[in-house]
Amino acid sequence: MKKIKIDAYPLLEKIRKEKPVVHHLTNWVTIYDCANIVKVLGGSPVMAHAKEEVAQMAGLASSLVLNIGTLTPELIEAMKIAASAANKKGIPVILDACGAGATSFRDKKSFELLDEAKIDIIKGNASEIARISGEGIRTKGVDAGRVNKDLVQLAKKLALQRKCAVVVTGKEDIVVSENNLYLVKNGHPMMADVVGTGCMAASVIGAFAAVENDLTLAAAAGLVCFEIAAECAAKKSLGPASFKEKLFDCLYSLDRKTINRLQKVEG
Amino acid sequence: MKKIKIDAYPLLEKIRKEKPVVHHLTNWVTIYDCANIVKVLGGSPVMAHAKEEVAQMAGLASSLVLNIGTLTPELIEAMKIAASAANKKGIPVILDACGAGATSFRDKKSFELLDEAKIDIIKGNASEIARISGEGIRTKGVDAGRVNKDLVQLAKKLALQRKCAVVVTGKEDIVVSENNLYLVKNGHPMMADVVGTGCMAASVIGAFAAVENDLTLAAAAGLVCFEIAAECAAKKSLGPASFKEKLFDCLYSLDRKTINRLQKVEG
Amino acid sequence: MKKIKIDAYPLLEKIRKEKPVVHHLTNWVTIYDCANIVKVLGGSPVMAHAKEEVAQMAGLASSLVLNIGTLTPELIEAMKIAASAANKKGIPVILDACGAGATSFRDKKSFELLDEAKIDIIKGNASEIARISGEGIRTKGVDAGRVNKDLVQLAKKLALQRKCAVVVTGKEDIVVSENNLYLVKNGHPMMADVVGTGCMAASVIGAFAAVENDLTLAAAAGLVCFEIAAECAAKKSLGPASFKEKLFDCLYSLDRKTINRLQKVEG
Repeated sequence: MKKIKIDAYPLLEKIRKEKPVVHHLTNWVTIYDCANIVKVLGGSPVMAHAKEEVAQMAGLASSLVLNIGTLTPELIEAMKIAASAANKKGIPVILDACGAGATSFRDKKSFELLDEAKIDIIKGNASEIARISGEGIRTKGVDAGRVNKDLVQLAKKLALQRKCAVVVTGKEDIVVSENNLYLVKNGHPMMADVVGTGCMAASVIGAFAAVENDLTLAAAAGLVCFEIAAECAAKKSLGPASFKEKLFDCLYSLDRKTINRLQKVEG
Repeated sequence: MKKIKIDAYPLLEKIRKEKPVVHHLTNWVTIYDCANIVKVLGGSPVMAHAKEEVAQMAGLASSLVLNIGTLTPELIEAMKIAASAANKKGIPVILDACGAGATSFRDKKSFELLDEAKIDIIKGNASEIARISGEGIRTKGVDAGRVNKDLVQLAKKLALQRKCAVVVTGKEDIVVSENNLYLVKNGHPMMADVVGTGCMAASVIGAFAAVENDLTLAAAAGLVCFEIAAECAAKKSLGPASFKEKLFDCLYSLDRKTINRLQKVEG
Repeated sequence: MKKIKIDAYPLLEKIRKEKPVVHHLTNWVTIYDCANIVKVLGGSPVMAHAKEEVAQMAGLASSLVLNIGTLTPELIEAMKIAASAANKKGIPVILDACGAGATSFRDKKSFELLDEAKIDIIKGNASEIARISGEGIRTKGVDAGRVNKDLVQLAKKLALQRKCAVVVTGKEDIVVSENNLYLVKNGHPMMADVVGTGCMAASVIGAFAAVENDLTLAAAAGLVCFEIAAECAAKKSLGPASFKEKLFDCLYSLDRKTINRLQKVEG
């Protein structure tokens, strides 16, 4: 792995210009933040979860983000319908495996979703990705547990198994597919002190995937922008709440120069 | 149309003094902001959606706000029950046609609601109001599409058809009923860069309608206050998130002098 | 009653060190704030409400917080299952009687919950606690009504009746059990001007109860920390929204010295 530069800014510019619709079926905790992060990026968030309308809504969208943070049987049913519509339309489907490994219900439903629909990007922290890969690791809350396996190998295995891109968030983010690998080393520890940054990362990836066919590049570019904004925000904040406010503000006005100067990517 | 002054402050004062209960059945995305905007205005927000209790809750309220942003069949059922109870009690019912036109499910359920209950104020952006009027325009996400019709005429038509007041939000807001017309020209472009300002506008209108029988005056006065607060907030903000925080703070302490100095209304 | 000092800081330190999982089944309005307040305290919030997984999730937790703010029959069913699992595991169950007294559905379901599961701490404002005690007082929205009864006696009666600790929030908070009584006199009026502080207080109590077996001490210590953070925040805020942001920031960095200097407890 060596240091590389990725062209993140042109994708951000494309989101700001094209305002892609990013359809979400997500959890009730961070649903506002997921919508708002897409909005401040310049995209058009839509959060609709009734099984009666999700297929048609996905048909209006440029990407679909699924997050299992507060899963119910009804919501997973709607997710399958939305994912199937997204698959038919050929738009990317992002799964945030939020809390995978915490309960057997959640695991079972996640696997059902992965088996019945084509997921294009699976995103989680180390323990969530381990669980989705079929490893027997339990999550403590929604925070990352420790995983002793070689994470890159684990993520690569899952990418091959599910024929998708895999994103493992953490101090260093792994973005991997059959043929690509990026490590994103941006970010700030304060991100772990506020609820929702993980969910927002998936929504950001959804917005970038809406404008870029190379899904590993899209995911890496999204993480770079989001985490550089976090670095800028942390400099001006007094705690997690002011940090979060500044994270939105910084992402809103993030420019090419800052992205190129601060990005830390290996590939 | 000529420039006029409306007496918005006395209504705001009345909300602060009487603390009217504003009952909401709304979406899961901006539910907190809808409650909080009513609270900082001085009102008492109640968000309850179980069909088993909405009639009784509406019976405790001074107005009812319905928002179809994340509609489900169960929620629309509860909305009908709440609206019917509100109609019986004689309190105003405000419908935020959030996302109307996006899916046929949403349209169908909106029309059902409008047919089965008396809605006193219908509020939406241009494309949503067009759809509710029966025009065949599709919404892109929750953002306003472009509408070529004469918007005032369209809103007036809907007002006559449904015997209600109609509010079309946009750069200039139209507030119209059979006999009244206001144009509210306050506001700030930053309002479109943060999720929830549209939903909050409906909740603000709900709070004003709770204390004023002239529903077009109530709606115009609510928009004037909300959008003047937005103008004040924009001057102090660095981006959409700090703007939103300051919007709440500014509305909380909005005074008569500021309202009278900054209001831009035609009628 | 005389002024006393309670050892709140060691409990806060314990939360920061042990990061206990606090499982919530709560309302859709303040769900984010409930999660985030636990997170900034240093705990691990989990918000899961599907009846299929709540028992297992409660099994991973160190305390369980139930909040009936936006109750449905499905949610109360899941609450019973979660509470039963929590009872079996022996972790404390906190009930925020949010909006009790507003509707007969809410009252009936609250009583069912109290009859079918062991609740360890019941928390509410004066009118909510009066209703849960079986008094015939109606709530106006979610704000505290006036209660003419001697509140301490009322709370004590409920504590004996339900064999639990009872917390009555207000200008002065009452924390009472069969054998203990604390009055917490910290806090700031601005707390009543922003939606969610009541719900957050219950989550804070949940986090403290997760690390301390003496539940009245846990509740009093939690309220002391939360309300001292509110006092610090109020000094730096321009209105309810900036107050709320600073409340999170202040709680995040609250230290032993500030707690000991500012606490106002009687016992």
